[in-house]
Amino acid sequence: MIKFISNARAIPTSFRCYTKLSLDTINPNVRKLEYAVRGPIVQRALEIEKELASGKSNKKFDSVIKCNIGDCHATGQKALTYLRQVLSIATDTSLFSHPKLPEDAKQQAKKFLDSCGGSVGVYSQSTGVESVRVNVSKYISNRDGIPADPKNIFLSTGASEAVKSMLQLISTTKDGKDRAGVMVPIPQYPLYSATNAEYNAFQINYYLDEESGWGLKVEELEKAFEDNKSECKPRALCVINPGNPTGQVLTSADIAGVIKFAHRNSLIIFADEVYQHNVYAPDREFVSFKKVLHSLGQPYANEVQLASFMSISKGYMGECGLRGGYCELVNFDPGVQAELYKCLSARLCPSLLGQLALDVVMSPPGPGQPSHISFESEKGAILDALKTKAKLMTETLNSLEGFSCQPIQGAMYAFPQMKLPKKAQDAAAAKGVPADVFYCFELLENTGICTVPGSGFGQKPGTSHLRITILPSIDQMKEVVSRWQAFHKDFMARYN
Amino acid sequence: MIKFISNARAIPTSFRCYTKLSLDTINPNVRKLEYAVRGPIVQRALEIEKELASGKSNKKFDSVIKCNIGDCHATGQKALTYLRQVLSIATDTSLFSHPKLPEDAKQQAKKFLDSCGGSVGVYSQSTGVESVRVNVSKYISNRDGIPADPKNIFLSTGASEAVKSMLQLISTTKDGKDRAGVMVPIPQYPLYSATNAEYNAFQINYYLDEESGWGLKVEELEKAFEDNKSECKPRALCVINPGNPTGQVLTSADIAGVIKFAHRNSLIIFADEVYQHNVYAPDREFVSFKKVLHSLGQPYANEVQLASFMSISKGYMGECGLRGGYCELVNFDPGVQAELYKCLSARLCPSLLGQLALDVVMSPPGPGQPSHISFESEKGAILDALKTKAKLMTETLNSLEGFSCQPIQGAMYAFPQMKLPKKAQDAAAAKGVPADVFYCFELLENTGICTVPGSGFGQKPGTSHLRITILPSIDQMKEVVSRWQAFHKDFMARYN
Repeated sequence: MIKFISNARAIPTSFRCYTKLSLDTINPNVRKLEYAVRGPIVQRALEIEKELASGKSNKKFDSVIKCNIGDCHATGQKALTYLRQVLSIATDTSLFSHPKLPEDAKQQAKKFLDSCGGSVGVYSQSTGVESVRVNVSKYISNRDGIPADPKNIFLSTGASEAVKSMLQLISTTKDGKDRAGVMVPIPQYPLYSATNAEYNAFQINYYLDEESGWGLKVEELEKAFEDNKSECKPRALCVINPGNPTGQVLTSADIAGVIKFAHRNSLIIFADEVYQHNVYAPDREFVSFKKVLHSLGQPYANEVQLASFMSISKGYMGECGLRGGYCELVNFDPGVQAELYKCLSARLCPSLLGQLALDVVMSPPGPGQPSHISFESEKGAILDALKTKAKLMTETLNSLEGFSCQPIQGAMYAFPQMKLPKKAQDAAAAKGVPADVFYCFELLENTGICTVPGSGFGQKPGTSHLRITILPSIDQMKEVVSRWQAFHKDFMARYN
Repeated sequence: MIKFISNARAIPTSFRCYTKLSLDTINPNVRKLEYAVRGPIVQRALEIEKELASGKSNKKFDSVIKCNIGDCHATGQKALTYLRQVLSIATDTSLFSHPKLPEDAKQQAKKFLDSCGGSVGVYSQSTGVESVRVNVSKYISNRDGIPADPKNIFLSTGASEAVKSMLQLISTTKDGKDRAGVMVPIPQYPLYSATNAEYNAFQINYYLDEESGWGLKVEELEKAFEDNKSECKPRALCVINPGNPTGQVLTSADIAGVIKFAHRNSLIIFADEVYQHNVYAPDREFVSFKKVLHSLGQPYANEVQLASFMSISKGYMGECGLRGGYCELVNFDPGVQAELYKCLSARLCPSLLGQLALDVVMSPPGPGQPSHISFESEKGAILDALKTKAKLMTETLNSLEGFSCQPIQGAMYAFPQMKLPKKAQDAAAAKGVPADVFYCFELLENTGICTVPGSGFGQKPGTSHLRITILPSIDQMKEVVSRWQAFHKDFMARYN
């Protein structure tokens, strides 16, 4: 050994070849990962924005309208006054004596600081500040009418981090038939496929039924499970409710069917419930998986493992940039939960200000408090506008030749199907891209409207879709409608 | 298939057995992971704190002093006034018209909001807000006297997230001899061992030389490499400078030796430089790996891949809870970098307020600006106090019988060696714990001083250490000294 070292050091280093990390040697799971919401079309939209800003663009439009991502504030939604007041007081504590800031905001900031150690600059417990977890548990109890224990709640950096932590936890790290199997709806929010790639899970796709408004059918779950169970170790079933990108809102009966299916097959339910405040259909309301699980009684209530994810990035608050969220665990083995919490401790904690923003959403100013009326009024206006825009978007999309859009019952997106002319499909094939990608790029280049091709979410073979958010303001939305209709007419004329 | 489904559904579900996720079926890498900084001793400290608060404790002390974690604000350090003003203005934009807030803070908040889209509630680019990355690049250029490109910088949720992303990127996802090999100093900050466990990397330990003030010797790197290279695919070399938990500050010559070693062996250098503002030894200054790499000329300057990590949690700002940081990549293949950035996009973006706090650290108020003098004065006072406490802590530890502590040249910790009496070692063995764990628990139970046993960081077999931060205020530090000296005298009397 010593001899070898001596030899090695005798060779002038400049004669030794340094081999860099290459696409062939990086983590293959990283290469597999795709995340369409920020994919090539968004890169192109950013370039066009820069061209427009430089004044050197020859585009016929003057702005890019970003309908690719559920980013409320980016499309002009105003932050909730009270939420931001609480955050700024906790950040700059000299504002406690600012006469124009309301008492309830000061009290909420004070309670948080008292619980976390006096500064938003400290690390909190890895699972989050205790007073916030208590408020999360109260929110859940009020919502469902059943108890929730702060010990089973951990706070997260948005919902994404929690989803990733849970998918990591159930990963087997094995290859071949021993890979963890994860059931994912198609279409899906691509965090799930990206994270399955990251942890080398075997993804079992189950299709939502477009014709019935993107319904979730137990028969389809059974079929997907049976078709794939020998290829992997099925572990988890992901459900997004209200749906992203599909906007459906499940009924209690739908959810009961899913829970019984999960029970039959020993699956953990990952319930992505980040759009729980975003329900627009008059005949639907949000019902949590936990509530239905409890209502089913034994053996379900005490057996089926459930992880429910929530975020401050959606709903009426839309605070994406603050990065806050929570996950509630139901029926997990305490030892497993301890291992998860240990794993979370290595990332220290989520942003304290993200935690505090979540605290406000979980425990907003109540009746009689100085900010109650303004908070509720701002919240109501945002949700009312979303409802209006959901209707307007559906109508617009259905007015386009070849488009059909299911009603948007909830969440923040439309996912219309497009029947594109044969000549357009050929043009796409000639460029080597799917027809939906071709259409979305044409739409972007000609109108500045940035959407995401349906292939980024998954769709039935032979169909084409796109995802568009309903977030632009009503004025912007009218602009979207006008640009799109003109473009689409021209597109269809060109390719028909 | 259909037949099977029918059968399955005919069986009453209550007769089917639901198997829960168990310790035997979770991700084995999660089980392997350990993170001592938040381990069992910290759990016990929290319990004692609750006992003290309840008034039902029979402890002889009235407070727990948390010296286990580099959390400046938790031990009373005040936040920088200007930094918090910028954050609160950007959060609650009505504060732009607050007459008591300084103009430069308003301008910095405005510049950030203009660059990110007008609200701290938006998602930024996955790599971070462009204006912040530009300020990071200017900071690096000024520090090193060589250019830095914002395209090679990505912002992160503290340094931890960036370290994890890079270790994930180089993981091979293979088993046995094909595992990625990662060289890690012993003692080390346990994020590295935890993340190596998480990604199933083969950890190659190299020992720092305690006798020479925790020096990093190239001979030891060579030995560790040669001893282990046939067991794995060596990929990366982690260096923590200034050192955690060991406090050493490397010279340019030390760093040059490390770079040449990395070049000879095609290793990527992961330079954890989060303590770059924390240097106390009069004969040392912080020199970045990038600066030395550049000074070595070819072939090093254009070949050796380097990832440098920085955080807002340490230094003089100590803003742990805001979760901000950056990573600069040097000499990475553009395709590899694109894959990394794609992977980062699935986590959306780091906290916007963490990004803004980093912006302030990278671009603080300059001479002539209203907040310049107060900012520099607060910064100076914090760094001066840390220097004083580094000296006081070293002296205290060296005054304890059987303790020897190397000078704290930088960072925020002391890592003294303890020669414990044979009877104490026997008592530890009887309890089935290492001697350092035994000592640290005794220290906690008898004095309320919470430290971390050396075994959590790694140490030479047969030696015992502990890590203690130098963060408590000077008054608290005196309390630590007095409690500890009394305890230690008693401990030694008991076991000698």
